[in-house]
Amino acid sequence: MSELTPINFTRGVPAVESFPVRDITKAAVAAMLDYGDSLMQYGSALGFLPFREWLANWYGVQPNEVLTTNGSLQLVEFLSYHMIQPGDAVYTESPTYDRTLTLLRRHGATIVGIPLEADGPDMAALEAALKKRVPKFFYISPDFQNPSGSTHSLEKRKRVVELAEQHNFWLVEDAPYRWLRYRGAEQPTLFELARHRVLHMSSFTKIIAPGVRLGYMLGAAEVLAKIAKIAEDTYISPVFVAHGIAYEWCRRGHLPDQIELLKKLYAPRLDACLAALDKYMPDAKPTRPDGGFFISVQLPEGAPTTAVRAAAAKRALNLADGLAFFPNGGGERFLRLPFCALTPAQIDEGIGRLAESVNEVRSK
Amino acid sequence: MSELTPINFTRGVPAVESFPVRDITKAAVAAMLDYGDSLMQYGSALGFLPFREWLANWYGVQPNEVLTTNGSLQLVEFLSYHMIQPGDAVYTESPTYDRTLTLLRRHGATIVGIPLEADGPDMAALEAALKKRVPKFFYISPDFQNPSGSTHSLEKRKRVVELAEQHNFWLVEDAPYRWLRYRGAEQPTLFELARHRVLHMSSFTKIIAPGVRLGYMLGAAEVLAKIAKIAEDTYISPVFVAHGIAYEWCRRGHLPDQIELLKKLYAPRLDACLAALDKYMPDAKPTRPDGGFFISVQLPEGAPTTAVRAAAAKRALNLADGLAFFPNGGGERFLRLPFCALTPAQIDEGIGRLAESVNEVRSK
Repeated sequence: MSELTPINFTRGVPAVESFPVRDITKAAVAAMLDYGDSLMQYGSALGFLPFREWLANWYGVQPNEVLTTNGSLQLVEFLSYHMIQPGDAVYTESPTYDRTLTLLRRHGATIVGIPLEADGPDMAALEAALKKRVPKFFYISPDFQNPSGSTHSLEKRKRVVELAEQHNFWLVEDAPYRWLRYRGAEQPTLFELARHRVLHMSSFTKIIAPGVRLGYMLGAAEVLAKIAKIAEDTYISPVFVAHGIAYEWCRRGHLPDQIELLKKLYAPRLDACLAALDKYMPDAKPTRPDGGFFISVQLPEGAPTTAVRAAAAKRALNLADGLAFFPNGGGERFLRLPFCALTPAQIDEGIGRLAESVNEVRSK
Repeated sequence: MSELTPINFTRGVPAVESFPVRDITKAAVAAMLDYGDSLMQYGSALGFLPFREWLANWYGVQPNEVLTTNGSLQLVEFLSYHMIQPGDAVYTESPTYDRTLTLLRRHGATIVGIPLEADGPDMAALEAALKKRVPKFFYISPDFQNPSGSTHSLEKRKRVVELAEQHNFWLVEDAPYRWLRYRGAEQPTLFELARHRVLHMSSFTKIIAPGVRLGYMLGAAEVLAKIAKIAEDTYISPVFVAHGIAYEWCRRGHLPDQIELLKKLYAPRLDACLAALDKYMPDAKPTRPDGGFFISVQLPEGAPTTAVRAAAAKRALNLADGLAFFPNGGGERFLRLPFCALTPAQIDEGIGRLAESVNEVRSK
């Protein structure tokens, strides 16, 4: 047993072999030569203007509708400072991104988890919750959601927007995986459906690399200006040296090619993960996403994730607990499977070990 | 009047001509080639280990006694999350760094300002305050303080440490200007006097450039681990791309030369500022620092800073208000003069305009 190579289905990290180190290096030299003085001085808390202009053009918005930060998680922190007073209600999907829950709790939010189905939030549960208490915002991730892998249908997207209009709450749309669609048809973002009602967040973490720490938010200029003031009070300005390098890499036109490269790399890994689940765990009923980083599985009765984790650890298979993704409890048999940083062979081996671990727990 | 070139005595920004853009560019290429994959992946919230090792060696501490962040201001934010519950007392010098006050207030601290004298805190006021309420920490900047320019005597440093020991509170020592001593003898840091009692903060903003956003804290490993957890919850990891570049620049041995270059550039600016004050405002009694970025002046009776600012604006001289530096009021005639980003000729011209502005206000 101890000779097995460890396999990690733990956090959603990109594949190291996807990092465009060579082109980032070239971009770094060009960025320093062309605007080194600007990159090395203090600047606007909204971010490096040429980069905000580039993103604005890419998304079809105005530069003052773009705010950049050192990673997108920090946007949740600044947004929470701006919008949440202790006790305020915030909705999330259930399950949802665990790090967002940590920050919402830090700010004293009363978190209401709306159960997530394969095609988006449980709309009856959402409407029932709204009858009790309207949130400040609904944190929602419609494309290849972390941790479930689910993608929202057009109908549910439209209905969520309608309800937000009707009850007057913000939609905070987190879409870092959206560009990684391996098949199927794209749905409009909530931001495209109702710009005045939605703050759209994304990140270059999943496309370029986490180490550039480059998140951004699109939304109403007056809201972003207030969030930027909180950012300024916290760190004066984001890391212009890193953002200038990423900007130059984008300006050189690398983004579309990089997205294609990632799709070619990751699509077979998604397929390998689904195939291995069908092979080793035919009753598992995983989510079957068309993109992103994650598949999730509801483990069978009698196989709680905590026990399966322990059994898996003996097989050098590292799993994450599911409980942290659920704001109001539940998730005892939930398992997230991040497949992007593993080769198809590792995935097949890992799911095999997972099936053994589940069987061991169930046979006890 | 409208043809005058604007002169800014506003914020403490370094001189653009001091930025080591060429060597930073070379360091960026080397850093990407040597450890690009590590710089582009998620990493420890404590920071990029080789850089923490380098800093640990520079300061004579262990790597787990070093935490790096995206600028040192954010350390105040994380520290506040760790140490302050709403209503807790925190001491600062009065005046003190205005951005620190903003963050302490954000966390609900009850701020007690200890009046600052030319050689450090007013010790009678400090002892009197301690009889009323012991703080969680005393935020203190003993070297070329922002905004006053004052430097603490050895006697006061020792006494502050004694009182912290006796009353059991932390000292948070902010020392970003310490390396910029243009003359005179260095005093030990509070950290050197009592490592177990002091969290020592500094930054590369004033030495390399603000745009690298690289702050760090030295202190007890178990405290830094807790602050790093708050950092992780906020942004996962700091911007390794930027920190790796700064590390490589340091590893190549540029830091001592850069400090010498800055001293040669800034010392004549300090001298020009003092000479101009003696020439145009002989009664001004400015602080006379031996280093750093700032001189401060108490304007004469009948010349509040707000009125002088307005008169100065007509002469294209931009000044900052003094009020924001004082946690508990006061500072109506306080004026900070950041001299580093101005040439000696601009400084002479600017202080001349300042004297005219003061005279205009007093003659009204």
